[in-house]
Order: sequence, then C-alpha cells, then structure tokens
Amino acid sequence: MKPETNVSQWSYENKENWIKPLPKSQSPINIVTREAEPMLAEGRIVLNYSHQLLSLFDADHCIEGKLKGLASINSRPFILSQFHFHASGEHTIDGTFFPLELHLVHESQVGMLAVIAVLFELGEANETLDDILDFMNQSGEDNHINMMDLIPDSFDYYHYLGSLTTPPLTENVEWYVLMNRMTLSKEQLKRLTSYHNHNFREPQNLNNRKVLKKLF
Amino acid sequence: MKPETNVSQWSYENKENWIKPLPKSQSPINIVTREAEPMLAEGRIVLNYSHQLLSLFDADHCIEGKLKGLASINSRPFILSQFHFHASGEHTIDGTFFPLELHLVHESQVGMLAVIAVLFELGEANETLDDILDFMNQSGEDNHINMMDLIPDSFDYYHYLGSLTTPPLTENVEWYVLMNRMTLSKEQLKRLTSYHNHNFREPQNLNNRKVLKKLF
Repeated sequence: MKPETNVSQWSYENKENWIKPLPKSQSPINIVTREAEPMLAEGRIVLNYSHQLLSLFDADHCIEGKLKGLASINSRPFILSQFHFHASGEHTIDGTFFPLELHLVHESQVGMLAVIAVLFELGEANETLDDILDFMNQSGEDNHINMMDLIPDSFDYYHYLGSLTTPPLTENVEWYVLMNRMTLSKEQLKRLTSYHNHNFREPQNLNNRKVLKKLF
Repeated sequence: MKPETNVSQWSYENKENWIKPLPKSQSPINIVTREAEPMLAEGRIVLNYSHQLLSLFDADHCIEGKLKGLASINSRPFILSQFHFHASGEHTIDGTFFPLELHLVHESQVGMLAVIAVLFELGEANETLDDILDFMNQSGEDNHINMMDLIPDSFDYYHYLGSLTTPPLTENVEWYVLMNRMTLSKEQLKRLTSYHNHNFREPQNLNNRKVLKKLF
C-alpha cells in the first residue's frame, strides 16, 4: 500500500534495497493528561480471571505469575498470558513516577498484545499483594488469589500503541494504563523490592503517537 | 513488561544498550489456506462509504483515490484514508498471484491501520473500474463512484498482522484479505497498467505469524 508520509525516493526497481523502519513506538511513555483525546470507540474492558494461581516465581528481572484468564478488550477476545511487577513504575503521569506498576499481559488469537497497567501509590496495604508475597516463599500448588483486588473498580484508562518495555521491545502492543491508582504499604514495597528494585525502563519518545482517554 | 521469548542476556544496568527489534512482520504474504485458523472473534466488517469521489490521481507509484468513508472493523471504528491499486496483486493465495489488488486503507483514532484487500482475476469487466479509469482523464469535481461494486458482497476474509507494503514499511497494520475475488476484463487491466505496472512487492516471510480465517 501507499504510505501517507513522505519518505525518501524509492522505486519498484530496487525493492531489495528498501529499508525497513526503525522502531519508534516504544513503551513506556509519559502521559500528558491534558493532551489525551477522548476515545470514540466503545472501548469496554471486561476481565474474567481464575482465582487459582498456576505459577508464581522470581523471573530474571521481575516477580511474575500466571493464572487462567479471559479478557474482552475493546470488543475483542484476549487470553491472559501472565502478570508481573515493575518497581518503580514505568508509565509516568504528567511527569510523576509511581512506586509500583502491575502489568497484566494479554494476547489475542492473531498475536496482538494488550497490556493493562495498574499504577500503585503508597498508602494502605493491599491484601492480595500480601498473598502474593507470602506465596513467593512457598511451593504450594493450590494457591488462590483474587487478582481483581489488585485492579481498580473503575476501568477508565489512557490508551496508546506501544511496545514491550524489556528486550526484545517488540512493537505490537496496545496499552491500557488505568487512571485510578491502587495502594500498597511501605512494608509491602520493601518486601517486593527485596526481590527486584529499579526494574523499570524510563519513558520513551512519543514520536507523534496519540494518547486517548476513555471514561466510563 | 517481561517478554515471553528468549532473548540474549540483558540487564537494567545497561538499558541504554538495549537493541530495538528488527521489523519482521512485513507484508504482503503468501496465504496458505489450509494453515489458516478459524477466527474466534466476532470480526464483522461494516463499510459506509460516500459515493462522492474527493480526489483521484496518478500518485508516484499507483493510482490513488480518496472519498469519505467510515468502517467498523472487528467492532472498532475506522476512517477510510484512501484506496489504491497494485498490479500484479501483492498477496498470493496458496502461491497464486492475481493480476490486480485493491487496498482500502483505514485508520483508527489511536493510529492503528487496517487495510481491506480485494483480489481481482480476469473475467467480466467491472463498471466502477471503468468509471475510475474514465475519471483519470478528467478534472471533474463532481465525480461519483460506487466503491461497493469493487468489493465482494461477502466479507469472508483472511486476517493477519503486517506492515505497509511500500516504504516506510511501517508495522502497525491489520490486514483483512477478502476471500472472494472480483473480476476485471483484459482491456481494463491494460488501461490500468498503462499508468503503473509491476507496482507490487513480493510475499514476505511469515516469521511465525498466525493467519486467521473468518467465514460469515
């Protein structure tokens, strides 16, 4: 197809010399809230996660867990691949960093990734986070958690197109950064960062991408 | 977020040396029909195109037109950016090349591209294609065409994630290659290729991407 953008001269006579684009839709980003455009699509997110933890482990660069989960994201079905934590958080809101960010990673049948990001600030302890930290020290095979207690009741979000935030940094990721924050206590942050600290990537250039906002 | 794939060792201590991925989800592709997986999503396509042609011109590498159009593609709203032709066609089906391929290029609010591709084989003349070829020689400002006559009645399709097929070859494109073919006459193909011929890119490596099929 014909691109809309101006690119240097090219012709069908030297197809073998066409240069593939450099990735420039990287994540995370800083979200400038006053520049976010109201999203027109219906955009609803419905999560249906199992309470049975399939695995929870200290991955190379983060704490990662798996459980069965289905999601309907903007009217399309996705499957939960895994969840994991970054401390500090990766997405910033109007320049503000958060102490913790939870990523719920989903994949659609055709291979599109959709990550729901939950930002945490310091405050009351979160019970499910305690469960997760307790389970890190056990090899229990019948651990149950209620993931929904790690996710705000309201699914208002910022939405943009980005990438994985760790190598291979692949760019086929729809990001849904939830507007409402959860809390964790100082003690919980200390326990969590005893596994991994500073496991975050700084905000990347937006490069003309749009950030949308969806309020329900 | 943590990738699922194995990548070479990396650490948060040398973030500045992380290597962004090489594009490897390029278009077009050869579609192997027996390997296409039934698509689970609702996946309906609804097009609402104006009959008033806004522009039609001999772009650098193809015949290109614009008209106002809305599309609902797999439950999300898109706007028609433009349409254009490739001869020969770009996507191949089980290795078969087609003489002509129409690309209907749409963009969503967040910047995702969705291209609906229509393959043509030689046969009866297509009236709307005649209209388009006639308009190429005029500077009429009130030209009307019925784009729906260039598109099969049935929207059964093959679906995969790919790229633009010309520089800058950007990879944020959802492809919907319609299964049913339209026809054009030898004379029409001759008129059309008098503007551009061989303006197509060969099929690219699939690189583990999935191709889905949707039947309504």
